Amino acid sequence: MGSLTKTAEPRRGSRRQPERSRNAILNAALAEFAREGLAGARIDAIAEAAGVNKALLYYYFADKEALYDAILDRFFAELTDRILAVCNQPGTAGERFLAYARTHYDAIAESPYYAYIFMSELMSASRGGSSHLDRIFSKYMQPIGVRVLALVADGVKRGEFRAVDPNQFIPSAIGSIVHYFLTAPLRERFMPERDTRSPQAIQQRRAAVLDFIAAALFADRDAGIKLAARIAAQAVPGYRAASQTGVSGKRGRRQ
Amino acid sequence: MGSLTKTAEPRRGSRRQPERSRNAILNAALAEFAREGLAGARIDAIAEAAGVNKALLYYYFADKEALYDAILDRFFAELTDRILAVCNQPGTAGERFLAYARTHYDAIAESPYYAYIFMSELMSASRGGSSHLDRIFSKYMQPIGVRVLALVADGVKRGEFRAVDPNQFIPSAIGSIVHYFLTAPLRERFMPERDTRSPQAIQQRRAAVLDFIAAALFADRDAGIKLAARIAAQAVPGYRAASQTGVSGKRGRRQ
Repeated sequence: MGSLTKTAEPRRGSRRQPERSRNAILNAALAEFAREGLAGARIDAIAEAAGVNKALLYYYFADKEALYDAILDRFFAELTDRILAVCNQPGTAGERFLAYARTHYDAIAESPYYAYIFMSELMSASRGGSSHLDRIFSKYMQPIGVRVLALVADGVKRGEFRAVDPNQFIPSAIGSIVHYFLTAPLRERFMPERDTRSPQAIQQRRAAVLDFIAAALFADRDAGIKLAARIAAQAVPGYRAASQTGVSGKRGRRQ
Repeated sequence: MGSLTKTAEPRRGSRRQPERSRNAILNAALAEFAREGLAGARIDAIAEAAGVNKALLYYYFADKEALYDAILDRFFAELTDRILAVCNQPGTAGERFLAYARTHYDAIAESPYYAYIFMSELMSASRGGSSHLDRIFSKYMQPIGVRVLALVADGVKRGEFRAVDPNQFIPSAIGSIVHYFLTAPLRERFMPERDTRSPQAIQQRRAAVLDFIAAALFADRDAGIKLAARIAAQAVPGYRAASQTGVSGKRGRRQ
């Protein structure tokens, strides 16, 4: 789990693997928060799903808000590390921007719960308040945004990209990355014959998204499309299949 | 309000303009549901915001569910009428598809509350149940989807479009249309200097979205981009400025 494995772990506890317990709690909390929202999530349900007692859960996390903060931090810290790493790698603006798009896509494909949690936060913000979003924005999203906007501006300046406005292009590209996962419940509910979550479906969608973005962005469209196909097909170390952490109508259902 | 002005209106009531009262209730309900969700919305607050008494509200709408259904129907019936009209107009697949994209964009720009209500429904569906979404999907979204997919397939067959997979292209295009509005609270909260909701900003965004989609879709990219600029700039009768019905951090706030 990237950066979080480096944080200090508490030494107490009868369990031999404190980090395993902590991660089990975080995974259970992620699923519960995505399904029930911050207000509706129950600590009892999280402890039960994680296979730990409530005392241990409260040892790691003081309250529900602290647990919610921890799952947001786990996701966004890792996302930020991965995105800044590909933005800083050697290569043209085009190579780095498509590697960014792939990394963003992979992060959501691996953990689609986050798309729902993030949407909940946006909806809170539209009602006038979300202290979590405030923190996540300034700590993670702003540094990512500044870096990725600069990458597009650089590609435009060098003539590798068309003369797009980075402030318009980025939300269009991110929309094409995330929308598929936000609307996955629709396909699963009404088009169950269409495969949405298998490794093959995730790979096909990745190729289609990178092709779409490259075709819209590169001055030399054919070269951009070829580059997108190559980057979409690359094996990336650390990739986890989406099905391990997927939200699905069936698996996510609770009565 | 398109198709709904044609429905029969009740004859009773001391008010001279029953349709005006009904629309005032629907507009107030839309804002309340977008902010509070179906569970959190309060009939008292809706009646008060609409300037009607609760008896009149219950005369038009039996209960909260019926009111929620009515606002979903008002939006999706009009959206379906408008989209099918542009899909059936004369012209090439490219002209009609870009006119569809513009119409979808305009509908959300005019009524951004709906993006949040729709997201709430998707989140309910991810939890395993949304009877409202079931109804909306089969009554409105499926007919739109079938028509728009056929339009893209037709353009590909004729060689006007690149050889994209319509089932991948449509969610990418819709993502680029809606994402800007879903993330508007972020820009309003953290980048208040950036103008998001003014008629000018809405127009610039419309041009950028159509440019993005056309650049990714057309076999002859330059011709597609020119066509997109022309369609984005067209005056369309019945366009309402987004600010009239916008969700914003300030206007939407309730303590």
